[in-house]
Amino acid sequence: MSSIHETIHRMGRQARAAAYRLAQLSSDEKNTILRAMATAIRDATPELLEANSRDLAAGVEKGLSPAMLDRLKLDEKRIESMAAGIDQVATLPDPVGQVMEKWSRPNGIEIEQVRVPIGTIGIIYESRPNVTADAAVLCFKTGNATILRGGSEAIHSNVAIAQALATAGAPEHAIQLIPFTDRDSVAALAGMDQWLDLIIPRGGKGLIETVVSLARMPVIKHYDGICHLFVDEAADIDMAVSLTVNAKTQKCGVCNALETLLVHRDIAPNALPQIAAALCEKNVELRGCERTRAILTDVKPATDEDWYTEYLDLILSIKIVDSSEEAISHINQYGSHHTDTIVTADTATAERFLRSVDSACVFHNISNRFADGGEFGFGAEIGISTDKLHARGPMGLRELTSYQYRVRGNGQVRG
Amino acid sequence: MSSIHETIHRMGRQARAAAYRLAQLSSDEKNTILRAMATAIRDATPELLEANSRDLAAGVEKGLSPAMLDRLKLDEKRIESMAAGIDQVATLPDPVGQVMEKWSRPNGIEIEQVRVPIGTIGIIYESRPNVTADAAVLCFKTGNATILRGGSEAIHSNVAIAQALATAGAPEHAIQLIPFTDRDSVAALAGMDQWLDLIIPRGGKGLIETVVSLARMPVIKHYDGICHLFVDEAADIDMAVSLTVNAKTQKCGVCNALETLLVHRDIAPNALPQIAAALCEKNVELRGCERTRAILTDVKPATDEDWYTEYLDLILSIKIVDSSEEAISHINQYGSHHTDTIVTADTATAERFLRSVDSACVFHNISNRFADGGEFGFGAEIGISTDKLHARGPMGLRELTSYQYRVRGNGQVRG
Repeated sequence: MSSIHETIHRMGRQARAAAYRLAQLSSDEKNTILRAMATAIRDATPELLEANSRDLAAGVEKGLSPAMLDRLKLDEKRIESMAAGIDQVATLPDPVGQVMEKWSRPNGIEIEQVRVPIGTIGIIYESRPNVTADAAVLCFKTGNATILRGGSEAIHSNVAIAQALATAGAPEHAIQLIPFTDRDSVAALAGMDQWLDLIIPRGGKGLIETVVSLARMPVIKHYDGICHLFVDEAADIDMAVSLTVNAKTQKCGVCNALETLLVHRDIAPNALPQIAAALCEKNVELRGCERTRAILTDVKPATDEDWYTEYLDLILSIKIVDSSEEAISHINQYGSHHTDTIVTADTATAERFLRSVDSACVFHNISNRFADGGEFGFGAEIGISTDKLHARGPMGLRELTSYQYRVRGNGQVRG
Repeated sequence: MSSIHETIHRMGRQARAAAYRLAQLSSDEKNTILRAMATAIRDATPELLEANSRDLAAGVEKGLSPAMLDRLKLDEKRIESMAAGIDQVATLPDPVGQVMEKWSRPNGIEIEQVRVPIGTIGIIYESRPNVTADAAVLCFKTGNATILRGGSEAIHSNVAIAQALATAGAPEHAIQLIPFTDRDSVAALAGMDQWLDLIIPRGGKGLIETVVSLARMPVIKHYDGICHLFVDEAADIDMAVSLTVNAKTQKCGVCNALETLLVHRDIAPNALPQIAAALCEKNVELRGCERTRAILTDVKPATDEDWYTEYLDLILSIKIVDSSEEAISHINQYGSHHTDTIVTADTATAERFLRSVDSACVFHNISNRFADGGEFGFGAEIGISTDKLHARGPMGLRELTSYQYRVRGNGQVRG
């Protein structure tokens, strides 16, 4: 413990020093290094495959599930995709240095609010080794030093990726990977608020809650997406069918997939059979409230537990509501404040829904699946925040920056 | 403990429900209620004075210092000032509902990023009863429900203020005051992240650290101001004297007051005697590094401890540095990243200083004392954040809001 603690605190001090050097790099300098990182990853393909094969062998021995092994696996295509992702980040606009606002005061002082790097960021993640490159590169682009702590399953792959990135000319210690994968390393990282400005845990709820309970610095959380779609009485039924099918089945294991369908009682007798038929074709299991089961007689009952559940699977809970107000209340009570959609041709109802649902993303007549940094046009995404402070919803490069006030005068004193 | 816990969790649930009602109020509705709150405070003057006299009597009995008793004291002037502050908040622009950005995507979806209330905010504070009104009113203006937990010394005054505010027509439970003042109430508040979106502790370092170690939700911290002023070799010496005296003595017990003066070695022999003479007239005690003491021979030695100290008193530490780079390094290492000033006629040096000092406020040729929401033109200030996430530096109404993405389409699905 003590040696892990010392090592991680030393990494923290080094990260802080690196952050000051990083903050001085121009966008061009950072982009040149990013392109060199992409090249380094491509050039290291044999080493990455070799390191990854050791992780995979250990994973087979440990009895990891086929899904887990697939997440862990690197192949030439995935390595190329990692490198292409880095090249892509190099092409994005750099938010650092942007003047957010500028004004002057009656006494003549000129105030500028300017985007600056946050400083030092800890990333704690689980099995996917590509996170090592993805997260480090987004932080680097925004002038932040990173300390990465990946899962034990991917340790050889993570070390190999970090080593490749380190050859690309970034300031020393700009990207550091913790060589330990035990729990003490998370505690040490979460406790050193003098060296670390932010922690972003990327993984399951258990990981996030552990970090939240230990951390003394801010944590940006990417919790569950218990996302809803509400079919209002004034909905176009064809649109409701199409959006529901897309939101539930286009990719069901992700946080912006649909988990609960709410249907206005007046449209339910017409809409529900059509929606159910379309979902049935996609092999979606339905669970309904009592009134739903009066219309869709072969549907299983939904319990209160279902309204709180993120299935991440081809399962959908359905509830009939009396009004858009009831839909809003249900979403605010049972949802996870991630992404919620209304389908309606009634603009007034839609606007009331958008204003009243307390979620990061509120959508009118589009699929929940659009809650995504790429779909929003951010070019890159570090995740979808379920926090309300600093960053909410899809997080791009801008959300990896802070700001400072630069104020210029000519000798003003306060009276 | 259990009963405190239950009471505070019930207040949390009530705050959440109130927040949903608050979010629906128009700016006009909120401003009308704010003006009614100001009137209610004025009308309650006799009750406030009576409640405050009980706190003062208890304080005298407990042996509080004259300074503490003064902080605690309400009189007619202070009550009028509290009411006038509320009237002033009513006149400020409401950030809620502002469209921060708006764009459309090639597929036709229209994305709006809109300011919304954060939701529910806990304020934990110490002895000044006026914080009850000040903090609650700023949160109310921005559509947030508050749970206030004041110090035991001011409990009668706080209850009386909260009762007066409650008569003004705000939604029920929009402003709640915790009737307990023991430590368990802080722990209960800090643990209920399902009901509370943010905690703002207002008080000393001990209070803030307690909240940070207990809190599961974000905490906006207002830590120390170890503020520096650097007299560059190219400084106008008269300006350096005037800014140093203002920054140190205009009000010395506040976080944006000057604590350490850094002087370039080439200007020190000329500048230091003039600065010291002016500070001496204001009864400032000086503590200097060895080189400072070679010039100012009757100054006490400064230890390493001094560079880390926020005196909040008429004491100033002085260090001679070899370069602006050394000044920047000193500030980044020993400072608290609050507010730091350079005095120089050399624009290139000034700009390098502004870009390189990792502080919320970086100033060129003005007094550190301008780091203030009022001086920045924010109209109101909840404090000066030493955090880098969400809010940094002076916090106005805007910093008490979050945002959500409202996205409108016509049936788009993700392919």
